[in-house]
Amino acid sequence: MASASLVEKLQLRVRELEEALAGERGGGQGQRARIERMSPEVTDSNPYSRLMALKRMGIVKDYEKIRTFTVAVVGVGGVGSVTAEMLTRCGIGKLLLFDYDKVELANMNRLFFQPHQAGLSKVQAAEHTLRNINPDVQFEVHNYNITTVDNFQHFMGRISYGGLEEGKPVDLVLSCVDNFEARMAINTACNELGQTWMESGVSENAVSGHIQLIIPGESACFACAPPLVVAANIDEKTLKREGVCAASLPTTMGVVAGILVQNVLKFLLNFGTVSYYLGYNAMQDFFPTMTMKPNPHCNDKNCRKQQEEYKEKKAAQPKQVVVEQEEEIVHEDNNWGIELVSEVSEEELKAASGPLPDLPKGITVAYTIPNKEENVVAGETTVGESEESLEELMAKMKNM
Amino acid sequence: MASASLVEKLQLRVRELEEALAGERGGGQGQRARIERMSPEVTDSNPYSRLMALKRMGIVKDYEKIRTFTVAVVGVGGVGSVTAEMLTRCGIGKLLLFDYDKVELANMNRLFFQPHQAGLSKVQAAEHTLRNINPDVQFEVHNYNITTVDNFQHFMGRISYGGLEEGKPVDLVLSCVDNFEARMAINTACNELGQTWMESGVSENAVSGHIQLIIPGESACFACAPPLVVAANIDEKTLKREGVCAASLPTTMGVVAGILVQNVLKFLLNFGTVSYYLGYNAMQDFFPTMTMKPNPHCNDKNCRKQQEEYKEKKAAQPKQVVVEQEEEIVHEDNNWGIELVSEVSEEELKAASGPLPDLPKGITVAYTIPNKEENVVAGETTVGESEESLEELMAKMKNM
Repeated sequence: MASASLVEKLQLRVRELEEALAGERGGGQGQRARIERMSPEVTDSNPYSRLMALKRMGIVKDYEKIRTFTVAVVGVGGVGSVTAEMLTRCGIGKLLLFDYDKVELANMNRLFFQPHQAGLSKVQAAEHTLRNINPDVQFEVHNYNITTVDNFQHFMGRISYGGLEEGKPVDLVLSCVDNFEARMAINTACNELGQTWMESGVSENAVSGHIQLIIPGESACFACAPPLVVAANIDEKTLKREGVCAASLPTTMGVVAGILVQNVLKFLLNFGTVSYYLGYNAMQDFFPTMTMKPNPHCNDKNCRKQQEEYKEKKAAQPKQVVVEQEEEIVHEDNNWGIELVSEVSEEELKAASGPLPDLPKGITVAYTIPNKEENVVAGETTVGESEESLEELMAKMKNM
Repeated sequence: MASASLVEKLQLRVRELEEALAGERGGGQGQRARIERMSPEVTDSNPYSRLMALKRMGIVKDYEKIRTFTVAVVGVGGVGSVTAEMLTRCGIGKLLLFDYDKVELANMNRLFFQPHQAGLSKVQAAEHTLRNINPDVQFEVHNYNITTVDNFQHFMGRISYGGLEEGKPVDLVLSCVDNFEARMAINTACNELGQTWMESGVSENAVSGHIQLIIPGESACFACAPPLVVAANIDEKTLKREGVCAASLPTTMGVVAGILVQNVLKFLLNFGTVSYYLGYNAMQDFFPTMTMKPNPHCNDKNCRKQQEEYKEKKAAQPKQVVVEQEEEIVHEDNNWGIELVSEVSEEELKAASGPLPDLPKGITVAYTIPNKEENVVAGETTVGESEESLEELMAKMKNM
């Protein structure tokens, strides 16, 4: 018994080392063979059987279609790395990864990267791990900061032409970055290209996050209504210089990556209800949803252009009965047209909610509309000690 | 003799590979050094800086306390493996892992395990990966099925005495199993020991899941109100024999693991609101919460005993004003005292909800109480073609 388990342990160690060595040498030992066609066959050796079962369960009509899609992930940190791993395991066609950071031991409180990868570039380490997990996926990685002038042009080019078939655009861009500047760069690019994308963010105090779907011209862009829920999510580089850092948790980041990729799957494979905005408040376990129309006075001229084109397209369509799945928030109440769901205590929630709806016993309100005057600057933005006005905050963010 | 020489050969190969790997990496081992005390210092090499920042952010009073806790994870599959990884990265004191399965390529559509681990036992492969990620955590793994008579006794013993300090009980048991029998075994053990535990589950169609906190005597146990939301989550072994398998997604399982470990952190480190029940419906992005009182007629005599003890304890306490955070569901409406939130379409939701509460513009109801008559057998249980009564379903589950 003892020697059998020793042999097992040694075999495990040998495999592990071979794998690590293959990785260092850029080879591929521990890898599985490529699979030509996704099969629904139920065998232990079929990595797609549980995904193809979504068809038999009546959830997805054509799961194999996942192989035809290209997704760009910008930011391969706590949310982006898990996002890329989920898409890889789901068998996405092609992934483009953008990041300029290196793996550090300080990242080990989040999923995905491992201590032996410290010092490697995030995109290089991620590509290696992901290729081992699923060699059927195509990878293209870029180890640069998308916000510099040259890199931004290159980034635009890859979004436009880096699809599975070179020359075709990607299907979706996912923002998993941790600072305002990078979000604005993605927003600018996507507005110019008319590229659909999804935003994600986690608050500086690690206990809330959100995802948001942005279809240029159709839903509010990042410049129409900056998601103030992440405004306090200050760039880690800046923070480190001051000797402080944002908190983070593998739980919150795992949940945000999970709801983000779930939204991607629903969007690409056409099942369920795609969320335009889904928040996560870990302290109270509430998950607000909403939709936001674009701001006709948006500062981004390409956003306004996309809005015009969308209006024309809609006007040209034959009249249909449109079943609205959610009430939309039209911006008319403040400068930025923002209505926020704030992070509040149970008591504040009750106090701010006005007359509570008459709900059946056992059911509580998951969230409510906060008092606008009070709360536009509240929510995650109060994590620091900010008593600034929305305008001051915006000015501050622009100067970051 | 043969095995001795095999051991020698393997040891030699390990040494060879370690040297080759060290060469490729220019020195350095894969693992990081152990850390004696958690530090809040903001450096790239501190794996705990982002967690200790939770103190400065005012979220957690005493984060270091995480090191004093022991958590047992039963089932190291799609939810359990990610659960164990999150706890490991958070720096939990000790983890006990229980599973009897082997890693298969068919598991690769979920996070954590990698193709090169196929064929290894799940607990062994998990322990190896987790130790590399965080050598500060203590691990104890058991490669067996807890439901056999002998193993069940051993399992009870480890829950009772396997704490960080041998002889002390564990602080929390997490059920991440995929079948009814194992859930009942955990329930039986925890009722007998008065051990607080959390349940988790993902539906057979992969698009919903839940977590549940069970404090024996205080909240409903698994036998008081079987969480029918996972009743259709048939044991994979059974399914495979019939040539079918349950669907699964890394997204849903990642979200369930995330909300589970978040609840664990809130429970152990005393922050936020701990959820007694939190559901996740991926199709509509709704997240029902509720609490359930124990069933005074529960079939488990130890549950009834714990209920009596809890009542006595409460009666002996000085009267306090208890602020109820959520309305509790008292079982009085059916045999099993169950009220379920079912998986329904947007239309069914509206149809079943009766008079909709008068909510402000832009806010929609995340969930509602379904029509009881109709829906007790509905929800995930209709994934197959079941038109069975609750009694028939229970009888069937007991025979599994």
